[in-house]
Amino acid sequence: MYLPSWLSQLYRGLSRPIRRTTQPIWGSLSRSLVLSSQRRNPEFSSFVVRTNTCGELRSSHLGQEVTLCGWIQYRRQNTFLVLRDFHGLVQVIIPQDESAASVRKILCEAPMESVVQVSGTVISRPAGQENPKMPTGEIEIKVKTAELLNACKKLPFEIKDFMKKTEALRLQYRYLDLRSFQMQYNLRLRSQMVMKMRDYLCNLHGFVDIETPTLFKRTPGGAKEFLVPSREPGKFYSLPQSPQQFKQLLMVGGLDRYFQVARCYRDEGSRPDRQPEFTQIDIEMSFVDQTGIQSLIEGLLQYSWPNDKDPVVVPFPSMTFAEALATYGTDKPDTRFGMKKYLKRKDIESIRKFSADHFDQEILPVFLNTNRNWNSPVANFIRESKRPELIRLMETQEEDVVLLMAGEHNKACSLLGKLRLECADLLETRGVVLRDPTLFSFLWVVDFPLFLPKEENPRELESAHHPFTAPHPSDIHLLYTEPEKVRSQHYDLVLNGNEIGGGSIRIHNAELQRYILATLLKEDVKLLSHILQALDYGAPPHGGIALGLDRLICLVTGSPSIRDVIAFPKSFRGHDLMSNTPDSIPPEELKPYHIQVSWPTDSKAAKAH
Amino acid sequence: MYLPSWLSQLYRGLSRPIRRTTQPIWGSLSRSLVLSSQRRNPEFSSFVVRTNTCGELRSSHLGQEVTLCGWIQYRRQNTFLVLRDFHGLVQVIIPQDESAASVRKILCEAPMESVVQVSGTVISRPAGQENPKMPTGEIEIKVKTAELLNACKKLPFEIKDFMKKTEALRLQYRYLDLRSFQMQYNLRLRSQMVMKMRDYLCNLHGFVDIETPTLFKRTPGGAKEFLVPSREPGKFYSLPQSPQQFKQLLMVGGLDRYFQVARCYRDEGSRPDRQPEFTQIDIEMSFVDQTGIQSLIEGLLQYSWPNDKDPVVVPFPSMTFAEALATYGTDKPDTRFGMKKYLKRKDIESIRKFSADHFDQEILPVFLNTNRNWNSPVANFIRESKRPELIRLMETQEEDVVLLMAGEHNKACSLLGKLRLECADLLETRGVVLRDPTLFSFLWVVDFPLFLPKEENPRELESAHHPFTAPHPSDIHLLYTEPEKVRSQHYDLVLNGNEIGGGSIRIHNAELQRYILATLLKEDVKLLSHILQALDYGAPPHGGIALGLDRLICLVTGSPSIRDVIAFPKSFRGHDLMSNTPDSIPPEELKPYHIQVSWPTDSKAAKAH
Repeated sequence: MYLPSWLSQLYRGLSRPIRRTTQPIWGSLSRSLVLSSQRRNPEFSSFVVRTNTCGELRSSHLGQEVTLCGWIQYRRQNTFLVLRDFHGLVQVIIPQDESAASVRKILCEAPMESVVQVSGTVISRPAGQENPKMPTGEIEIKVKTAELLNACKKLPFEIKDFMKKTEALRLQYRYLDLRSFQMQYNLRLRSQMVMKMRDYLCNLHGFVDIETPTLFKRTPGGAKEFLVPSREPGKFYSLPQSPQQFKQLLMVGGLDRYFQVARCYRDEGSRPDRQPEFTQIDIEMSFVDQTGIQSLIEGLLQYSWPNDKDPVVVPFPSMTFAEALATYGTDKPDTRFGMKKYLKRKDIESIRKFSADHFDQEILPVFLNTNRNWNSPVANFIRESKRPELIRLMETQEEDVVLLMAGEHNKACSLLGKLRLECADLLETRGVVLRDPTLFSFLWVVDFPLFLPKEENPRELESAHHPFTAPHPSDIHLLYTEPEKVRSQHYDLVLNGNEIGGGSIRIHNAELQRYILATLLKEDVKLLSHILQALDYGAPPHGGIALGLDRLICLVTGSPSIRDVIAFPKSFRGHDLMSNTPDSIPPEELKPYHIQVSWPTDSKAAKAH
Repeated sequence: MYLPSWLSQLYRGLSRPIRRTTQPIWGSLSRSLVLSSQRRNPEFSSFVVRTNTCGELRSSHLGQEVTLCGWIQYRRQNTFLVLRDFHGLVQVIIPQDESAASVRKILCEAPMESVVQVSGTVISRPAGQENPKMPTGEIEIKVKTAELLNACKKLPFEIKDFMKKTEALRLQYRYLDLRSFQMQYNLRLRSQMVMKMRDYLCNLHGFVDIETPTLFKRTPGGAKEFLVPSREPGKFYSLPQSPQQFKQLLMVGGLDRYFQVARCYRDEGSRPDRQPEFTQIDIEMSFVDQTGIQSLIEGLLQYSWPNDKDPVVVPFPSMTFAEALATYGTDKPDTRFGMKKYLKRKDIESIRKFSADHFDQEILPVFLNTNRNWNSPVANFIRESKRPELIRLMETQEEDVVLLMAGEHNKACSLLGKLRLECADLLETRGVVLRDPTLFSFLWVVDFPLFLPKEENPRELESAHHPFTAPHPSDIHLLYTEPEKVRSQHYDLVLNGNEIGGGSIRIHNAELQRYILATLLKEDVKLLSHILQALDYGAPPHGGIALGLDRLICLVTGSPSIRDVIAFPKSFRGHDLMSNTPDSIPPEELKPYHIQVSWPTDSKAAKAH
């Protein structure tokens, strides 16, 4: 057996005090709604028939005549009715006197989730009947008039059970799902956070919001790009994966500081927690270096961070790609926790099994006894004299478990990185919370390799990110001798183990760009001749970044899936379950685009259809 | 000959004092940049290597050490150099002393449009050498160090002549065109105006910015929708013309106040001044009526209007569709001018010719003499006794010319409306400015018909706008008897003769929606079953509007084409001339989408390919 030249250690956890995530309730929304607008509260009732929102009423409104519009959430004994709008809930008293028979009839007969308009007076609840759990719990509405604006048919399920239903059902009736507190909170927080980002970029730092086309040309090697047939036979547009080329051209055009909340497209077929269309905060600047972009983004996140979370601390720590791989076994380490303390001996068996099942790898655990004897099958392979040095290197303490791995560096690191997360899962099922959901650990990962060996032919190179990434200034000489060793000026932003952004300083020199495209990457430069030409005509040095908005908002809101922060997401198979999208098209409507369907002939595909 | 039962009059002009459009110059940009940010000036030099922008330097900066980055705009006698960035121009003194030989070499040898970085001191220009036409004309830069950041190859044309070149050339080298003052001004004004709209909607009025999908389902009858093949055989997404269905579903979902700066798609083949993708300010509200939406939009435009224009006066005047057609011969009247005073007798001939050439119609001019005799061939057909009444009706005065038209009402009105614009063109070539480019005349046009007879089969009806438009409350009873007479709750916003927005109160009653779709429009309701179902489950009353952003910015900036307010527009044939888009795709890349190209077989189409 070959003895590992390299040892990886699963890091010792620094257990932090764990705060529970606040359970969202109707009413906390009203506070968070004013996130970005400290200077003024938005008028939620301008231009409409209501005078107030249901959720905003308090004791300070006592005696006011109000008109409210909302959905019937709940009715009790034909006496009380709880009315809901996006802002919250309010209790309405159904009048019992004979003169109000028509109002009573409307309010008692309307099915749940019907939309009504009521006018009346804000009054105190009788002493002892206040509801301290409800933000409007001190008051209720004494109704004078009521109007049924729209009756609700019997729903296929109780609305209050709806969130417990399968996701497919929630997506099919998305318009009902959107009425939930959680979806309202997520979408409104997203809107507010993006608004603050715009404020920061546009008003504070002079960025220009520029829309770039989505009907564009296929990128060289751009698999995963949706096609759009044009009316010219055989000619297609392509929906780009990012505005990369356009934002660089804007820099050449002197636009200087560009941003866009950009819709992007990626056709990856069926992948869980990916969407065929997604949104990125797309940024590019001229005359900037890596530090400049990083400071900009740190400021951006600090400025736009929701007020109901702990403030973002800047600057973010930074780590090289090599260091991240060596110590965390991944280029997107979750730095909320180290590793590890709490494994029991029987857990080791499940880790060995996980490793064998998922990676076809043998794990060799080392148990250190109080006397520092190595209780491990691997002990035989390590000379007695070397052991104290290894123990020192690994900073092990009594009762520690060390997982050793032998093999090719990157693969071994990667496996240990996955095991680290697996161990965290394991420990969290035991009630040890390692990954505090209220904690946001940002990390820059830098100095990525510029190229990677192609998977299908490791003797050829491909861009680790994209071909416009500039090489690290210290490594430029290696481009002509050992290009595989060149580091890039690419940087990733990682949050809690998720890549939420990535960018780079770009190549602004046409010759260098041509050399990399043609000689190193062997791409057809004709497809990018407009870029090469643009670099020749006075392109400034420039760089940028893109933040994945859906993922970021997903993490900020603590949502289990990015589908919970998108109003109308596609299912993991790329379907809109509400409208049955994608759908068949009659052949005559394909004619103007000079295409026809190639129906699969093999029985399997035909069956799938 | 049939005597006209209806008379249309070309309105008498109220000649207003004409202000000239300000010729934009570099430097007025710096003032307009702070449009939306009165409360704070953006920091244009944060995070980057420069200390200041070229355009911001004034006498107040005298003595400061500055670092500037920019393009070489101009060089004179190897002594002066004019440096340009997005903010403006500044004069740089090339040092002549021997010790600065390397700096001089850089600055004297760099080709025009090269990018340089210079550091030096802000000094006064010598007495008498100030340039009052240049915002930075009191100062210049005494350079200490200079660096060539990127050399510019010889351009295919002089950059200062560039704007005079053909539009095709400008589009091919769009990144150079973007360096022009005009494009910088247009794109920055667009960004600022949209930012203020967002501020108004989001921060002042509690709207939620929600992104809706662009990979959607084909709309019933939705020709002009681009298709996107999916990986399922025969199944296609469609790029929607607007987020109409989604915004209504958001209202059903209780999102209450939605807006989005939405990318929309329309495949109209080759049409001048249309783009296959365009942007609309898309808005929807619950519990609102027509007046509410109109007030919202008036406030929105007033709030976001650029400070360098006259303020927008609200409320906007309103006119019914019938009135607009009868008096202006169009549903989008240019109300900046009435009609008419200045026609000469020989102009009548050219109007007659225009009318004959374009509409195959005969025009009968009536010249009123001082004695009010009708000097016109039409005089014979009008009884002498009726003439004074007609003159009174038409409010004619001495020397007036009246153009009479006989025929079907709508067609006659439409022709006269076009003649009115033709007359305005004619008069403006004579130097009479009727359509003041600095004047912005907004107008609501309301009470459109709900349905129109289908062109191909006038006994069937189609929606005048879209099938979700609510009927006018006074006309609902006619739906079941004379649907063609029903007016709608649709409204258009017109600016200077251009439709810049349109919207409506929507149908929120499922039964009514079903009746209109199935019985009146004979649509396949299965394609919209999700909408009908949503209306059944507690849909609130709602309405909205969409503003065409490209057209609006085009009018605000006084640009000749919407291509001048879009960073990377398509040509009128839908091509991106810079990158050669759309482009061919290798057949193997079509395979995953189960499509193949149907090559045209006839020789003509084959030749076109």
